[in-house]
Amino acid sequence: SIDGQRLWDTLMAMAEIGPTANGGSCRLALTPEDAAGRRLLLDWCEAIGCTWRVDRVGNLFIRRAGKRDDLEPVATGSHLDTQPKGGRFDGILGVLAGLEVFRSLHDQGIVTERPLELVVWTNEEGSRFAPAMVASGTYAGEFAVEDTLARRDADGVTLGEALEACGFAGDLPVGEPRLDGFFELHIEQGPVLEDAGESVGVVTGVQGMRWFDVTFTGQSAHAGPTPMRLRHDALAAAARLIDRLQAHAMADASGDTKVTCGCLDIEAASRNVIPGEVRLTVDLRHVVETELDALQALFERELAAAGETFGVTVSQQRIWASPVVEFASECIAAVEAATRAQAVPWRRMMSGAGHDAVYVSRVAPTSMIFIPCRDGISHNEAEYATPEHCSLGAQVLCDAMVARADR
Amino acid sequence: SIDGQRLWDTLMAMAEIGPTANGGSCRLALTPEDAAGRRLLLDWCEAIGCTWRVDRVGNLFIRRAGKRDDLEPVATGSHLDTQPKGGRFDGILGVLAGLEVFRSLHDQGIVTERPLELVVWTNEEGSRFAPAMVASGTYAGEFAVEDTLARRDADGVTLGEALEACGFAGDLPVGEPRLDGFFELHIEQGPVLEDAGESVGVVTGVQGMRWFDVTFTGQSAHAGPTPMRLRHDALAAAARLIDRLQAHAMADASGDTKVTCGCLDIEAASRNVIPGEVRLTVDLRHVVETELDALQALFERELAAAGETFGVTVSQQRIWASPVVEFASECIAAVEAATRAQAVPWRRMMSGAGHDAVYVSRVAPTSMIFIPCRDGISHNEAEYATPEHCSLGAQVLCDAMVARADR
Ligand SMILES: NC(=O)NCCC(=O)O
Ligand SMILES: NC(=O)NCCC(=O)O
Repeated sequence: SIDGQRLWDTLMAMAEIGPTANGGSCRLALTPEDAAGRRLLLDWCEAIGCTWRVDRVGNLFIRRAGKRDDLEPVATGSHLDTQPKGGRFDGILGVLAGLEVFRSLHDQGIVTERPLELVVWTNEEGSRFAPAMVASGTYAGEFAVEDTLARRDADGVTLGEALEACGFAGDLPVGEPRLDGFFELHIEQGPVLEDAGESVGVVTGVQGMRWFDVTFTGQSAHAGPTPMRLRHDALAAAARLIDRLQAHAMADASGDTKVTCGCLDIEAASRNVIPGEVRLTVDLRHVVETELDALQALFERELAAAGETFGVTVSQQRIWASPVVEFASECIAAVEAATRAQAVPWRRMMSGAGHDAVYVSRVAPTSMIFIPCRDGISHNEAEYATPEHCSLGAQVLCDAMVARADR
Repeated sequence: SIDGQRLWDTLMAMAEIGPTANGGSCRLALTPEDAAGRRLLLDWCEAIGCTWRVDRVGNLFIRRAGKRDDLEPVATGSHLDTQPKGGRFDGILGVLAGLEVFRSLHDQGIVTERPLELVVWTNEEGSRFAPAMVASGTYAGEFAVEDTLARRDADGVTLGEALEACGFAGDLPVGEPRLDGFFELHIEQGPVLEDAGESVGVVTGVQGMRWFDVTFTGQSAHAGPTPMRLRHDALAAAARLIDRLQAHAMADASGDTKVTCGCLDIEAASRNVIPGEVRLTVDLRHVVETELDALQALFERELAAAGETFGVTVSQQRIWASPVVEFASECIAAVEAATRAQAVPWRRMMSGAGHDAVYVSRVAPTSMIFIPCRDGISHNEAEYATPEHCSLGAQVLCDAMVARADR
């Protein structure tokens, strides 16, 4: 069984690389801090006899040999990069729990049939290079290697240049090694488990997500002398859309419809000027693809209606779409069996957030394990998961991996 | 009668001081550009024998002698400062039309009974030092001199320091000279006259205005895993408030209710993060004070309801209130008589925007003259009024002033 204290100590040690003022971490992808985090992990892994390789987009594959190294490995992993003011658990837990699995097996002298692989996926957060999960997506064939290497950060540095600069430009062809299966442990990043008093989520898939950039173009004018009937108020139209989308999502008793408007920018805003142009982001999610289609259609209708009501021109662009993912039943079953053995409250659930497992699931049988995080908060220095829950998640991960590797 | 071409030439010459890329002007209050504009005006006025004084908050009083210089002067004026990307007419027309009145009387050898006074009020726009109309407000006793001098711009420079630096710190006590009457010519800054095909607005008063800073405090959380029912979405609450206020204002068939939300800021916005804090500005206007009270009460109720619906804490602060102004009937009548003499389509109307005349009207009989501006646009480089309308407005101003000065 795994050593929860040791796992916690590695989490806290990793958090010291790129520490932030309020107890979080800042390790943007492929910065010196991200590289230092990877090297710390590699030191720990080499100490227990693991070997490692890096592919052309910087994905790091750390192998623990099995009895049959000719077979494809059973893998785990997540990411070590963080948001600018990120937490100590999002991604990191999934990587360090993999390390803890390796260490525990090492301590107990256990060698699995199949080799095990711990993967650190590059740039999951998407904070430095958009979009999120770009390197696991490249591994799975969703993005072309050259395109990924050419993506630029806000300073114009390409992902390829950043890889060279930080020493993690590898030569392993992207897509190798092929995996027999992939398990990812992650904090839930939402409040569902905590709210229900449950300790483990057996993740059966990931909801579909679609991202839109919306522009409302009206006419800016002075707030005082312009009659309501002659206005073309871009913010009024945006507010109408937001309100209608919220009302629709809140009316769905199943709770499966999710709508979020995260960014709203008014061009040249001033308190006594009617907004002439507003840019809004819309994030639509649903666990059923056809329902997501219907939600998008509703969004398009409400957008057109809001524009018409307020005499405002509207346009929208869908900039990302991630279809509903259903994980492999055999991997879900392995996680469920390992969870049942712990005799804690648990549930099957869909992931609300995208994870590297979304893309990996296209090329290997995959599932995920969630543990609760305090107040559902993540992407925030205040992100927290208890040592007990981290330990529990790592134990479930260990048991699921060993079961699959030895099947 | 006044010389419309000469007026237009002075407007265009003034616009060359602090010109902007797209044909507007940038003369923020008490900058070197603003001072250069004032000096150009003073050169023109001295050339026709005027004298001038500056009060302690930089208001500039330029006098044309009358037959009875022991009597209080009949005054006109407006402001020379602009928005950062302002136009060539807002404020400037009111000042340069006053100059044109003086020049025309000078050319024709006319001396009025009472002296005439052309006033350049400091910092009307409020772009550099908040609030707007602060120096005419100080003249009228609304603000204390020391408070006005201590107001700071975004760089921390006080209004008093800026006055010294630009050479317009005067020693005339604020509140002097007392005025027999005040007429202000201004572009409408709205589309009403243009929309109706009318050339002059006889301004009978100014609608009441109230400004609010509103804060919505919810809880930021990840857009994906957070169920709608557990959200505290600050933007959803703000959108609900905006939508309800818009619906209320648009439903007022009289057109007298005006609501504008000009600024909306989301704290640490990200497209997949539920907004945790939103700051919104609300501008409420009405021509009837008791209706404005009712509008504020409605705003407060809708704000509370929006907060409750979305589980968001709300707070608001009223940062400015300007009561409904009714101009002096004798001054309105003088403007109306001068307008009728021109045989053009005109209307009586309330001003939608605040002007220096709002505060001056508390201490002297006052009214205003509006001319149309293209598409109702102001506070914008594209602001435009035709030479014909400028000339017409200046003629009405001249006739109203002379009639009062000789009454
Ligand atoms: N885990 C995570 O934050 N992924 C980013 C994509 C998403 O918004 O779900
Ligand atoms: N004329 C003008 O823009 N005044 C500022 C105050 C207002 O918003 O009405």
